[in-house]
Amino acid sequence: MRSYKPITLLTDFGHEDTYVGIVKGVILRVLPQATIVDLCHNIPSHDILRAAFLVYISYPFFPSRSIHLVIVDPGVGSSRRPLLVVTRDHYFIGPDNGVLSYIFEGGDLRRVIEITARHYFLPSMSSSFHGRDIFAPVAAYLCKGIEVDAFGSEVSDFIEIPLPKLRLASENVLTGEILHVDRFGNMITNISHQDLICLLGMKERDKARLALKIGTDIEIKGLRSYYGEGEGGKLEAIIGSSGHVEIYVNQGKANLVSHKDIGDPIAVGFL
Amino acid sequence: MRSYKPITLLTDFGHEDTYVGIVKGVILRVLPQATIVDLCHNIPSHDILRAAFLVYISYPFFPSRSIHLVIVDPGVGSSRRPLLVVTRDHYFIGPDNGVLSYIFEGGDLRRVIEITARHYFLPSMSSSFHGRDIFAPVAAYLCKGIEVDAFGSEVSDFIEIPLPKLRLASENVLTGEILHVDRFGNMITNISHQDLICLLGMKERDKARLALKIGTDIEIKGLRSYYGEGEGGKLEAIIGSSGHVEIYVNQGKANLVSHKDIGDPIAVGFL
Amino acid sequence: MRSYKPITLLTDFGHEDTYVGIVKGVILRVLPQATIVDLCHNIPSHDILRAAFLVYISYPFFPSRSIHLVIVDPGVGSSRRPLLVVTRDHYFIGPDNGVLSYIFEGGDLRRVIEITARHYFLPSMSSSFHGRDIFAPVAAYLCKGIEVDAFGSEVSDFIEIPLPKLRLASENVLTGEILHVDRFGNMITNISHQDLICLLGMKERDKARLALKIGTDIEIKGLRSYYGEGEGGKLEAIIGSSGHVEIYVNQGKANLVSHKDIGDPIAVGFL
Repeated sequence: MRSYKPITLLTDFGHEDTYVGIVKGVILRVLPQATIVDLCHNIPSHDILRAAFLVYISYPFFPSRSIHLVIVDPGVGSSRRPLLVVTRDHYFIGPDNGVLSYIFEGGDLRRVIEITARHYFLPSMSSSFHGRDIFAPVAAYLCKGIEVDAFGSEVSDFIEIPLPKLRLASENVLTGEILHVDRFGNMITNISHQDLICLLGMKERDKARLALKIGTDIEIKGLRSYYGEGEGGKLEAIIGSSGHVEIYVNQGKANLVSHKDIGDPIAVGFL
Repeated sequence: MRSYKPITLLTDFGHEDTYVGIVKGVILRVLPQATIVDLCHNIPSHDILRAAFLVYISYPFFPSRSIHLVIVDPGVGSSRRPLLVVTRDHYFIGPDNGVLSYIFEGGDLRRVIEITARHYFLPSMSSSFHGRDIFAPVAAYLCKGIEVDAFGSEVSDFIEIPLPKLRLASENVLTGEILHVDRFGNMITNISHQDLICLLGMKERDKARLALKIGTDIEIKGLRSYYGEGEGGKLEAIIGSSGHVEIYVNQGKANLVSHKDIGDPIAVGFL
Repeated sequence: MRSYKPITLLTDFGHEDTYVGIVKGVILRVLPQATIVDLCHNIPSHDILRAAFLVYISYPFFPSRSIHLVIVDPGVGSSRRPLLVVTRDHYFIGPDNGVLSYIFEGGDLRRVIEITARHYFLPSMSSSFHGRDIFAPVAAYLCKGIEVDAFGSEVSDFIEIPLPKLRLASENVLTGEILHVDRFGNMITNISHQDLICLLGMKERDKARLALKIGTDIEIKGLRSYYGEGEGGKLEAIIGSSGHVEIYVNQGKANLVSHKDIGDPIAVGFL
């Protein structure tokens, strides 16, 4: 029994309308056997950076050669280009507005194609819903086996948005920021486990000695091994499931306890 | 590799309960290979008109002979009848309460069947969840290949709710109303591009001359070509992705800026 | 055309993040043809009892030998064990924290396996997302045909949480409580139709004589046959679609009208 690679959807379409369903309808018209997976549709409207981060931490868990549609597209209908991005073992489709910036930076990039082959678009194309009219049918044709080159030509001047950077403030202190707050109130930062090892030289036995500072007023000592280790009500740090430093409260909400949010700075170092 | 036509779901069941999942379970018991697509489950409770409009603007993007379940059903368990509606190339299943009124009016209607064949229902039928007990299994059997006539007999006295009508207020002014506000705050009206062409005689070059009045106090001049053309913070009009006149604010929310909502009147004409 | 049994997901992951999508990605890596159904992802964070009840009233509508993942897991990463539960005709996978208590009590239990076979886990296992690292791949391998015994050994000391109990307060009065409030404001109790028949000796003709008391202040007389029978604005009782006594308001919200909520007591008897 043959099966096709999954097509995933990450959008800011929400669940109040039928936009997501319509995108799926268009995919199924081209490829009735498609496997479509919702990654998330509650990206805050037009929040390109959030979508960029979430697709980056999520796609590695999908089968190789999955196709990931990322549709957060405030410039829809303008001259911004539709892109098909090829990495070592995944495909990404979305607008050329920076929403694939983390993939460009860390996704083992191979080629970036500007999608121009209009015969793969919906015939009755709108200026306001390219998710339906361009991205969905192109994803379906790609999944069906159409070659990457058939959709357009390679470009190198695609847009990258400035990503929150790590800074080695001193030999022993790494600074970053909060990138995402999840449903549980966990605050996920842009400092990864790998960064602690490579940039701070952290070893397994050093975890208890790690010191974190959030904003200018909150200090946390040590990395916990699992959520339940934390005392109730108290801010704690852990290497979260995405491999990034994460601030949490055991059975509570770290964002409410800390009054911190996306964009707030974090510093990590050794005492 | 054979595949079955999609079964879509449009309901007011929300996402807080397991009602949607249960409907899918029942479909899969009858047809394990079914392709089920969520169209929307956040229709405000019992808002029949909203569901009627959303299924109408969404179904054309699905493969022909898809089966669309529309379950907004305040009269469940009463004598209101379950219907199977056949148009030129789609099927619709839902209660006889007007939720398919736009399909009756504009869907290229062929036949309306009252579903009476109880041997296709769940054996343990409830009086409060016909989505599970009648509509889901009937959709699955229809998808599997059971003939339309096997489910019941044709009726002609099905219920149609009064749909917000267009009125040609004068030779040059068309009046309608706001039918839906989407997640982005875009306000979608019941005046279609087709209406502008056929009823107002609009030509492509006339777009800039079109004047819109929302309620009694807001005026908008001209139709934009894409969202990004609008100045930030300012109300603009466009032919939206559903082919209807839509009021929007570039990177803002038109409903909040205008203080208008579903049901508010709109007039369109030439200056 | 072969098809696999459905894998259902019931979690407290919400729809704001990509956690649910990631779980599906992991399943599809093991079994590309998997049929995955969302049961509900809006369980309030860490509300084990709610999840336990919802999976219990939902699973019977799925094909036999479906696999139900129930992931509400505040103790993730601690020593709490992952379980695979086998009933007469369904499988359940989740943490050993009581989230399967209703299944243990009423699900026709056959065997409870502690999942220990690490070669079925994701190689890079985290301490904070066993839904992704353990439960998803184990579900996929089970669905693919791996034998139950391959995942670990039987245990009998699994955790059961105290479930709200029925009490026969007198020969004619049964007391229980509100277990769930659904999107429509309907309040679903732990008193089932079966309980009324077996414990109160109710017969079909007695329905009108049934008296219900919610809390200490609200009385309802008789069981309605369908929602629409109720007068607008007035609290009514019915045997709901899950087979439990349910308090509702016709086209209104019973929880708002009654000011009652989950945990509030209910008494049922004959006048």
